[in-house]
Amino acid sequence: MPKQNGLFVGGVDGGGTTFKCCISTVEGEILRSERFVTERPKDTIDACADFFARCAKDGQPAEAIGIACFGPLDIDPQSANYGSILNTPKPGWSGFNVRNELAHGAGLPVVVDTDVNGALAAEMAWGAARGAKSAVYVTVGTGIGAGIFANGDFLGRPTHPEFGHIRVTRHRDDIYAGACSFHGDCLEGLASAPAVEARFGPPALMAADHPGWEIVACYLAQACISLTLTVRPEKIVLGGGLLLAPGLIDHIREQYAAMLNGYLDMPTDAVAQLIVLPGLGDNAGLLGGAQLALKRLAGE
Amino acid sequence: MPKQNGLFVGGVDGGGTTFKCCISTVEGEILRSERFVTERPKDTIDACADFFARCAKDGQPAEAIGIACFGPLDIDPQSANYGSILNTPKPGWSGFNVRNELAHGAGLPVVVDTDVNGALAAEMAWGAARGAKSAVYVTVGTGIGAGIFANGDFLGRPTHPEFGHIRVTRHRDDIYAGACSFHGDCLEGLASAPAVEARFGPPALMAADHPGWEIVACYLAQACISLTLTVRPEKIVLGGGLLLAPGLIDHIREQYAAMLNGYLDMPTDAVAQLIVLPGLGDNAGLLGGAQLALKRLAGE
Repeated sequence: MPKQNGLFVGGVDGGGTTFKCCISTVEGEILRSERFVTERPKDTIDACADFFARCAKDGQPAEAIGIACFGPLDIDPQSANYGSILNTPKPGWSGFNVRNELAHGAGLPVVVDTDVNGALAAEMAWGAARGAKSAVYVTVGTGIGAGIFANGDFLGRPTHPEFGHIRVTRHRDDIYAGACSFHGDCLEGLASAPAVEARFGPPALMAADHPGWEIVACYLAQACISLTLTVRPEKIVLGGGLLLAPGLIDHIREQYAAMLNGYLDMPTDAVAQLIVLPGLGDNAGLLGGAQLALKRLAGE
Repeated sequence: MPKQNGLFVGGVDGGGTTFKCCISTVEGEILRSERFVTERPKDTIDACADFFARCAKDGQPAEAIGIACFGPLDIDPQSANYGSILNTPKPGWSGFNVRNELAHGAGLPVVVDTDVNGALAAEMAWGAARGAKSAVYVTVGTGIGAGIFANGDFLGRPTHPEFGHIRVTRHRDDIYAGACSFHGDCLEGLASAPAVEARFGPPALMAADHPGWEIVACYLAQACISLTLTVRPEKIVLGGGLLLAPGLIDHIREQYAAMLNGYLDMPTDAVAQLIVLPGLGDNAGLLGGAQLALKRLAGE
């Protein structure tokens, strides 16, 4: 018998490949979830709305829904296009307003933010950045992006950071031109999953002692250094598919410390506490949506 | 006859070479100022206290004093060492508490922050970043540092950014090893005044068409790109001695746009409005101190 007491919120992890939906308690307990292949936008959102309608019928009505969504995305609540997917190669999605469509279909208040802002909100509430006043969530996968929280809100309002495209210093053994269609050898161009695969083959098949990991770690360590020197966050959570590689986080921490070269007087255990893996794993996006909904209900 | 109406605040621009003091109105009008060579810490602060005592006697009493101070510096109001200069090569200054000493000497509330946070506060109140909700002040001189304001406060609390030490991509014609004793070829190691002088001679003697400016602009453009992609500030104010070079700001804007390569869809005039020179010139530090005092009086 489903849990029926207390307040429930809906979370949506809107990805380019799958949309996941859940009902969560205010404590971040996922009571029920489903996933749908990301197809035509209207069909995808209809499937989400239908999920929340069935949950309500079963005694688990969401008070509000949050979508942690792929982008580019208009996340400015003051904008006429708040909730719209911006220019994207995904057929049919450019200009589609995921928020309005779901609000209409589900008959509920819906908020939307970037997938990384959502994941960060969840990690700060229930995961690896719990209790931190400032934190960053970096995803390293098909692309590289970051959600950054400081001084009580996400950075980059009314838009959002585009952290994947910062410049980095080349690793001395790396002659790869870079995979970014805009910038060639920016961070994303050198350290995203496609950039790794182009040089070393599929990341999942690379042995833990493959020398390519040192090169990847060199760039991701620079990303962490840049975040530290700019924002001084209490936590840097490194997520995304590439961070599933065993030991990569240790390489990153080592190179971070080596490159800072004692500048901030940070002992080894301080680095290990600063640069961490996600605490919520696959559920960061879903719980990110739920946390966005909770923040909305709390008036934040 | 001196202005005697209204509220006055004291501003101190605490530099490694000179300390400047002023009495300012709440509108940022400097009514009176003096400068002292930075000598032994006690003598320097005594000279400041004496200035404010004379101003009070002349009918211009400061309600509070703000110090925009050189560092490294403890700027955490919760810290037992709030207002202390940290480890510095300047003889006698390490561990000296500029705030406590001036508060005691002047008998007034004194607040202290970094020189760049102070300059940024002044530029946001009365200068080139007036009206911006988020902004950055970068100083490029003997070192490179940044004050960053977003979401209602400076970034990096309870410490401050160390932005000068981010990694950058090398200019293809630049083989200089870098001047930073910690990191060699970080931003400061490649683009600070000593790094420029080491390659091209004194910056003040470099002609406007010296090819070295393209190299300097390449690194400072990367700094602006990094700030944009991380913080999305409304204004990036570039100050410090090096920015006195005629035309350097234009080189930086051009390379910023060229390196972004259309990624953020920012027209030329948007770049010119984003990356700007200081509006307060030499007075940014003094008015920074005054603005810090005003924020304190306003309870911020």
